[in-house]
Amino acid sequence: MLEGMIELAFVPDRASALPVYRQLGDALRALIDRGRLGPGVKLPATRELSAALGLHRNTVSRAYQDLVGEGYLTAHVGQGTFVARRPPRGLPDRPAASGPETDEFVWEGLFAHRVRDLSLPPGFRRLGDAARTHPVEYSFRGGQVAADALPEKDLRRAFDRIVSYRLPELANLHEPRGYAPLRRAIAQHLVTRGIACGADDVLVVNGSQQAIDLLARVLLDPGDTVVVEQPGYFGATLAFGAAGANLVGVPVDEDGLRTDRLERVLRGRRVKLVCVTPSAHCPTSVTMSERRRQELLALSDEHEVPIVEDDYDSELRYEGPPITALKGQDPAGRVIYVGTFSKIIFPSLRLGYLVAAPALLNKLVLSRWVADAQPSVVPQAALAELLDSGALDRHVRRMRKLYSERLAAMLAALEASMPDGARWSRPPGGHLVWVTLPAGTDPDGLFEAAFAAGIEYTPGEVFHFDGQGRENLALSFTNMTPEAIGAGVARLGEILHRQRARPRRRSER
Amino acid sequence: MLEGMIELAFVPDRASALPVYRQLGDALRALIDRGRLGPGVKLPATRELSAALGLHRNTVSRAYQDLVGEGYLTAHVGQGTFVARRPPRGLPDRPAASGPETDEFVWEGLFAHRVRDLSLPPGFRRLGDAARTHPVEYSFRGGQVAADALPEKDLRRAFDRIVSYRLPELANLHEPRGYAPLRRAIAQHLVTRGIACGADDVLVVNGSQQAIDLLARVLLDPGDTVVVEQPGYFGATLAFGAAGANLVGVPVDEDGLRTDRLERVLRGRRVKLVCVTPSAHCPTSVTMSERRRQELLALSDEHEVPIVEDDYDSELRYEGPPITALKGQDPAGRVIYVGTFSKIIFPSLRLGYLVAAPALLNKLVLSRWVADAQPSVVPQAALAELLDSGALDRHVRRMRKLYSERLAAMLAALEASMPDGARWSRPPGGHLVWVTLPAGTDPDGLFEAAFAAGIEYTPGEVFHFDGQGRENLALSFTNMTPEAIGAGVARLGEILHRQRARPRRRSER
Repeated sequence: MLEGMIELAFVPDRASALPVYRQLGDALRALIDRGRLGPGVKLPATRELSAALGLHRNTVSRAYQDLVGEGYLTAHVGQGTFVARRPPRGLPDRPAASGPETDEFVWEGLFAHRVRDLSLPPGFRRLGDAARTHPVEYSFRGGQVAADALPEKDLRRAFDRIVSYRLPELANLHEPRGYAPLRRAIAQHLVTRGIACGADDVLVVNGSQQAIDLLARVLLDPGDTVVVEQPGYFGATLAFGAAGANLVGVPVDEDGLRTDRLERVLRGRRVKLVCVTPSAHCPTSVTMSERRRQELLALSDEHEVPIVEDDYDSELRYEGPPITALKGQDPAGRVIYVGTFSKIIFPSLRLGYLVAAPALLNKLVLSRWVADAQPSVVPQAALAELLDSGALDRHVRRMRKLYSERLAAMLAALEASMPDGARWSRPPGGHLVWVTLPAGTDPDGLFEAAFAAGIEYTPGEVFHFDGQGRENLALSFTNMTPEAIGAGVARLGEILHRQRARPRRRSER
Repeated sequence: MLEGMIELAFVPDRASALPVYRQLGDALRALIDRGRLGPGVKLPATRELSAALGLHRNTVSRAYQDLVGEGYLTAHVGQGTFVARRPPRGLPDRPAASGPETDEFVWEGLFAHRVRDLSLPPGFRRLGDAARTHPVEYSFRGGQVAADALPEKDLRRAFDRIVSYRLPELANLHEPRGYAPLRRAIAQHLVTRGIACGADDVLVVNGSQQAIDLLARVLLDPGDTVVVEQPGYFGATLAFGAAGANLVGVPVDEDGLRTDRLERVLRGRRVKLVCVTPSAHCPTSVTMSERRRQELLALSDEHEVPIVEDDYDSELRYEGPPITALKGQDPAGRVIYVGTFSKIIFPSLRLGYLVAAPALLNKLVLSRWVADAQPSVVPQAALAELLDSGALDRHVRRMRKLYSERLAAMLAALEASMPDGARWSRPPGGHLVWVTLPAGTDPDGLFEAAFAAGIEYTPGEVFHFDGQGRENLALSFTNMTPEAIGAGVARLGEILHRQRARPRRRSER
């Protein structure tokens, strides 16, 4: 399979006074200097490279040995030869690497209009940057599951059954709607959410993000208006924004989306979609009241505007009766239901689903074909096993108990450690507690000090597309023991107290 | 977890003369009649449903029993109660089901302009329809791997190691570029394709279809021109078309893309992208000659037009020296390299990769975040194991040998069975043989007769966006034994001979 990695950049000059092994060494060194062979890359075995280049094996060996001696390569007995983790770029006894080549192609001018200004929300970028540079001891970042309580045994059994016995029949499967037994299992699962649908009403997607992105592809022209919750899920904002939509935020209070404010928007302009998280609002975990639900459905009916029901956290409920889905009260098929297994199995599984009226679903399936053909079949088939065997239901029941304890620990820790003036939600479900900092707190200073102290959280501005929410934090309680939650919140409280004792230190200087 | 599936559509009327169990039965029957509870759907256990609805358990039991008696439901001891496979829709003793409700929401007018006319190529649709209605005995359909020679042991070991030992650290992973060890392994794998890159130059995608779709998202505004091969890969045509691009087809001969024809296009108009499959052209499996490659690179340089190198079948080569990638001769970073594991592991794994210059790659990563966050982590980590352990290399070597034998069987069978005037490619690599039917063949009649005889193939028109290619078939030789290939091709030959003995039978009538 090997062929001339260097054949193209390096043609041995047999007429040169420089021995071929030195020529080869120079060519390799240049690739490393220019970053084309990155740190840690394994080089081909000398046998393979010499065969590919038509050189004597010793020639390649000597070139490798020289570069090992110079610190460009490292050799590990029995493993092979690798580019050094820190190659000695631009040693003084050689001309320094020339940097970016002058003829390097410039891409920026070729980007489509829709993506030119596409970027992650600033708070999200900051979170990513901070997480890369700081070791995290206490992770309150949103979107996690309990890594210490995964259904590992059930997953192992399910994956093993699929990979051991089912691959020949699954390997060449082509099913853009998703693996049929999984769609059947999801349809059955949805009966418990008050939704009556069949396997053909279900589209399996790579997590709810893909569901929302496909809806943006199929329903949004540039300039269309979409109503989103504020605060709300930033992934939806990104996808709708990338499709060129105008976003209108409608606030959320303790009863969920403010339908009076929504009504005002709907009376004023044509709206293409209203996107809500009624079971456990992202990020406050508030549940939309039954009265608001009826008002929302009536507004959707009156203004003929479809609703996207992002039900991402609905299985996680710790008190009160289970909440039925809006989709269950939707005889006209105007509600598009989006669910995910990210919060009840694990997020990097990337499996979710969408239920919609047939005319819309068929267009979504076609767009899904264009986007990436179909979901990966092994995780789908393993998930179908988990659903059919009842293992997932059992796991969800365990997680409700575990998360309920962790939520209680979080609320107790906030009570014990937060300074006066701080407020926080006491959610009946979901995975986040939404904290409002006391007036006068410096949110950037807090974020930096918290990361420096090993504490990771999602800053509130991530959930706003208009720069608001700087006085908020979203704290997930799912992936830490009660003890760690107590210790992490206490440390966060200390930082806040300290910060408030010396308010706006930076600006005083 | 259960809640009122019927609570919302059905509120028990305690004042009614009709017993509650009959009211519940009517509500369930209506859901089944209207197709909202599809055939085979499992109903909640009576205990669960009665608790959710606040009814006595016997009430639910009696409702279920009545519907079982009427044939709407079926009960299986120890398994539960299900909607019957063929519920008795509209029995004469009840008013017939009302059909689609009059207030059903109409979606068609809401579709975005880009997707209104989106549809699969007619030949592809026909293939799908035929495959659903006919049992397939001989499958020559493209895009398959040998299901009888999967690396099952290696896959089992790799998946088991990941699911058994690595889940806690992988469950909450968030890496839109793809799992870092897999990106490192891919970068190393690419050294053997003549490409020197590091892990950070690689984007892991859900198969090459997602790579192409992301390129369309990031680089194409409506009205931009894209050059594609004709015939060529229909998935690329679909994705570029869905982005609103104007497609210009450039023909392919035995040396690959006709660069003279490409030059004419480039002189006449601004082209945003040129998309080629140089290692094994889709669908003819032709390899682009070295001269044409140099001409293509020179044209790309002169006209500053980027090249998408779809290298999907490159690992499958049965004769001659390995072919290096165009990307290996691309110092300016103008070539975008797309690879996939679909043809060397299996297609429903949905893992491929893209290598591009950093400025472009960063924008692609962001768009990937918006599209579906990241690829599923378990298949990624298992694939990294296959690459790092050398298992994939061994499997590819085995597949080269196996497919080489199957290709030989295909060519021998064509020689023995095709009528005079038929021609076919003798590819040095890839997975398809491209057959040109004798003049005067009725391609639709052949397709229908072949499917009726249990033979599935991809009609040539699938690979053209302009209705051409009706005189061609693409025959895959990968997923059948040499004996089955011989028998299937012989049967196809008989149909052709018979058809030619009675030409255009239909139109004569």
